Amino acid sequence: MTELITARILKGFRDFLPPAEIERRSLVEKIEASFRSFGFVPIDTPALEYAEILLGKGGGETEKQIYRFTDQGGRDVALRFDLTVPFARFLAEHRGELPLPFKRYHIAKVWRGENTQRGRYREFTQCDFDIVGSDTAAADFEILLMIRNTLLSIGAGEVVIRLNHRGLFNRFLAGIGAAEQGPEILRIVDKLAKIGEAETLRLLTETLGGERARAVALFIRSRDSYEETLEGMIRASGGDSPESDRLRTLRRFMEETGTAASFVLDPSITRGLDYYTGVVYETFLTALPGIGSVCSGGRYDNLVGLYSREKLSGVGSSIGLDRLTAALESLGKPEGQRSGYAEVVIACIREEDGGAYQRLAGTFREAGIPCEVFLEPKKLTQQFIQAEKRGVRWVLIPGEKPLSSPLTLRELAQRKDRECLSWEEAMSIINETT
Amino acid sequence: MTELITARILKGFRDFLPPAEIERRSLVEKIEASFRSFGFVPIDTPALEYAEILLGKGGGETEKQIYRFTDQGGRDVALRFDLTVPFARFLAEHRGELPLPFKRYHIAKVWRGENTQRGRYREFTQCDFDIVGSDTAAADFEILLMIRNTLLSIGAGEVVIRLNHRGLFNRFLAGIGAAEQGPEILRIVDKLAKIGEAETLRLLTETLGGERARAVALFIRSRDSYEETLEGMIRASGGDSPESDRLRTLRRFMEETGTAASFVLDPSITRGLDYYTGVVYETFLTALPGIGSVCSGGRYDNLVGLYSREKLSGVGSSIGLDRLTAALESLGKPEGQRSGYAEVVIACIREEDGGAYQRLAGTFREAGIPCEVFLEPKKLTQQFIQAEKRGVRWVLIPGEKPLSSPLTLRELAQRKDRECLSWEEAMSIINETT
Repeated sequence: MTELITARILKGFRDFLPPAEIERRSLVEKIEASFRSFGFVPIDTPALEYAEILLGKGGGETEKQIYRFTDQGGRDVALRFDLTVPFARFLAEHRGELPLPFKRYHIAKVWRGENTQRGRYREFTQCDFDIVGSDTAAADFEILLMIRNTLLSIGAGEVVIRLNHRGLFNRFLAGIGAAEQGPEILRIVDKLAKIGEAETLRLLTETLGGERARAVALFIRSRDSYEETLEGMIRASGGDSPESDRLRTLRRFMEETGTAASFVLDPSITRGLDYYTGVVYETFLTALPGIGSVCSGGRYDNLVGLYSREKLSGVGSSIGLDRLTAALESLGKPEGQRSGYAEVVIACIREEDGGAYQRLAGTFREAGIPCEVFLEPKKLTQQFIQAEKRGVRWVLIPGEKPLSSPLTLRELAQRKDRECLSWEEAMSIINETT
Repeated sequence: MTELITARILKGFRDFLPPAEIERRSLVEKIEASFRSFGFVPIDTPALEYAEILLGKGGGETEKQIYRFTDQGGRDVALRFDLTVPFARFLAEHRGELPLPFKRYHIAKVWRGENTQRGRYREFTQCDFDIVGSDTAAADFEILLMIRNTLLSIGAGEVVIRLNHRGLFNRFLAGIGAAEQGPEILRIVDKLAKIGEAETLRLLTETLGGERARAVALFIRSRDSYEETLEGMIRASGGDSPESDRLRTLRRFMEETGTAASFVLDPSITRGLDYYTGVVYETFLTALPGIGSVCSGGRYDNLVGLYSREKLSGVGSSIGLDRLTAALESLGKPEGQRSGYAEVVIACIREEDGGAYQRLAGTFREAGIPCEVFLEPKKLTQQFIQAEKRGVRWVLIPGEKPLSSPLTLRELAQRKDRECLSWEEAMSIINETT
């Protein structure tokens, strides 16, 4: 006997069995439908790229986590670890073929050799969307509105998008003579929700001394309304500025679209990363604030700077699909949601009637009702159990002559049989209740 | 000035720009909808696996083409080169959680370091579907029917599925005392369409001598009908057998479902690979026979043999998405097919009216009509050109007060303007014709 190989999966990687994969696809479908309703279009790029492209000017954490190797042709290659860097390369390479402003989305897998002890996966799906080539309030607002509408469309309840403007934050920091410490301060403030106000103030004091630290602590506090918070930010940053005008225009757009209740101006939102320059935002589910932001992003300048002298500004965001899937799970399935398997099963009474069963199934399929044909003439109770495991609602039990004999229609959940039906009768019962 | 990195992609890899990616997704959507109508369900597995799992007992060509490397944890890993081996590993690992017969599909990327000079890609999408755990004519037929219905649903015209039975071929070979040379003969016959009858006979003669080679050449010839071909095969293989019974039952199922015209019994179809044991088949587009088979597969025994002592028989198939996409392209787009961008664009007259534009766009989106808002107040002619490039049908040109002033509706292809409309009038014109 030959030796068996142990069937095993790499640590940090996952199989998706049908129930989980059906959920994931249904979520992605809803997200895509929302994106497409705004006229956003999909792109795709390779999983594998030159390591030089992905690593750019190198970067500590990234370099340690990236799956990098030498291919058969001696090239230094790596698996993409996000969708941003490949998008920058894509823009530089196809600049002439793309309409500007370019509104695209990209839903695809990325790979990082993360520490799995922290519950992180090494393979996961990202969902990015951006508008490139328009530094307007209209572009900022379209991304914010699309985040809101998309998340409302997936059935996770109300959302709150907390936004800020990095440029206005920097203007304030320059005013108190703390421009140089900017990146460090943004990183500290970014942790506010995690570490609390007292610890934030302590860290700020270490960097800036007591007086300026207290000024920052005051600046990052949200007031009762968007307007009051904005007024406070304007006063603290030396009066009206292009950045505060942008925030004011965004507010007007929110009101004009009747969406103002979904947005909070929150000067403590900084998105620690260095490359944002304009608006930044995070999104929270009202039902599950504890899971953190499910969709974050902001405006950046010069996305393609590594590859081109042309400046391309953009605004974009990324939905955390894994976090969102977990959230939807903990919120519970909405009533009446389908399992993703067929709605109807035709039980197998005699193996040789397989052709007739398929013909009958065809009439359901053509009517848009998914219909599975069972293939083996097992005991009916066993077939019922199989159908129930799939979450199927109806089982059709054909008679002696499948195409002409009366049949029995069983509603599994109710364990209720309707006997002596014609196919047409069974079909119309199913049609009426599906 | 910092030095720029050249934006470039690896040889054999592709970017998908929006028009191509929209096509690809729309094709996959149609395929999935057909699979789901049969009650098939999706799964997913990791891109990266232990090399030991993927290579099994090793295999010349595969080993040379596979992307294999040592990860950060010192593991010998590789990118999957097909979806069959990961499926076998998946089955062995999750056997207890899966309903048998298990009907699954898997659409995902695979990677092979192919020679790109032959026009091959190193990253491409496979689309596999199988029924595991039922060795019945009903299972064979369901896969055949699903191939037919799925390909008819994508708008590539009529298809012909040519099928054979490897077991019956082997029975015939054993009868003429050529069982031992079986694999070699299958490989030669597999090339028939490519190398022609004369060359096939020459190669067969080299292997089997003249008399037996002529017997094989006679066996693999299709007659005028499925029935006649089957009768010839039965005579040549020593009378009725379980294999010929299977082919006869399949024929009956085809007739009972009114699909017989889509199937041809072709004893020269062998699917060179070694692991098929029952029915085998290839699928050709009637409009484009020259591109070769767009969907092939067959029945195999013992898929999980490398990992488990349990025998699991299955029947499955794989759609060549790249080939199919190319085919659809060369057949031309059906009349009236949408571009995948929005149906309607709202032109930008004044930047500060962005909120009103989004509010109006919302009414279209809620009615299921994708609507893009242009973000910058460029010249109208420029906005028309941008909209035309996207394949958009309608441009709405708002008036002085976007929410209340009369507007102009332009149908781009006709260069026809309808002026002085209310929003409701514009909406109903678009609704009626979309």
